[in-house]
Amino acid sequence: MRIPVALDKAYRLLNHGPVVLVSSAHGDARNVMAAAWSMPIDFSPPKVAVVVDARSFSRQLIEASGEFAINIPCRNQIEAVLKAGIASGRDTDKFAHTGFKSFAGHRIAAPLIEGCAGWLECRVITEPHNEAAYDLFIGEVISAQADDRVFRDGRWNMTDDNLRTLHYLSGGTFFATGDAITVAPD
Amino acid sequence: MRIPVALDKAYRLLNHGPVVLVSSAHGDARNVMAAAWSMPIDFSPPKVAVVVDARSFSRQLIEASGEFAINIPCRNQIEAVLKAGIASGRDTDKFAHTGFKSFAGHRIAAPLIEGCAGWLECRVITEPHNEAAYDLFIGEVISAQADDRVFRDGRWNMTDDNLRTLHYLSGGTFFATGDAITVAPD
Repeated sequence: MRIPVALDKAYRLLNHGPVVLVSSAHGDARNVMAAAWSMPIDFSPPKVAVVVDARSFSRQLIEASGEFAINIPCRNQIEAVLKAGIASGRDTDKFAHTGFKSFAGHRIAAPLIEGCAGWLECRVITEPHNEAAYDLFIGEVISAQADDRVFRDGRWNMTDDNLRTLHYLSGGTFFATGDAITVAPD
Repeated sequence: MRIPVALDKAYRLLNHGPVVLVSSAHGDARNVMAAAWSMPIDFSPPKVAVVVDARSFSRQLIEASGEFAINIPCRNQIEAVLKAGIASGRDTDKFAHTGFKSFAGHRIAAPLIEGCAGWLECRVITEPHNEAAYDLFIGEVISAQADDRVFRDGRWNMTDDNLRTLHYLSGGTFFATGDAITVAPD
């Protein structure tokens, strides 16, 4: 079941460095891309940074709409995640190509991807120099949700291997998120 | 054994989103901090982004020296990583506190941390607005090394559980990097 995540806990969906799907929409156009390069940059209000290539269709939609969503996919979506990372939305309907279904977000028009572990709806904080020089976009997270089978009360619980999040290396190789280890401070 | 990593493959040390140790030095002072928020932002020349809190001692050393190193720790260093994330170098000798030993880098004065899986030596690309507004530092990677037990020919090989890299959640909880999964593109 999808449950809301308090905004001051939203960074925890992204803190462990998973690969994400960035979804976007403008007018009748929409797209979804895979991104290895995203991270939280602030707790509250939560902000994220993500690299979006200048040549990508997503870039065009994000610049036009000032919004994007970060979706955190699971291991059972791995083939579709790779497809979303290889094809371009300029010449392919990425939703048909990947099989991803979407649902409406609470605060933004970008579609959210069904079957993911978590979702962050973001409004772009415009930073023209970062966007031009580094393809780096900064967003404020204005709504967050998670699948309560894997994230509840601000904590991940990835006991089902199919619902583990993923970390991307290169050349079609991913790592699944592994065992949780809690260390007591001295 | 520590081996050089070609600069155009250096991003792969960081691509899967591990927690890192940021080390820095200026004059006689040196420090090491844990950081969950770092990522590659370019392939070649390789660049990274990392969040360094304005109040931290590391921030002072990085601003003064224009350099930092990113060290990628292993599971068998987890207690020291947490210590490095909690204590402040302003009032603690973090090397004595954590037990981390260091060795000299090839290109920068910041100490590199022994026992890690990989090392990225970085020169700051000064971006005053990002640093002031977001605590966000951008660095160009000018030298990279890895432990060949876990990273060789541009690929991770984490078969020894003790040498798996780590991903940070919150409250002393980490995830180990899990199974590698390779998907063939269509």
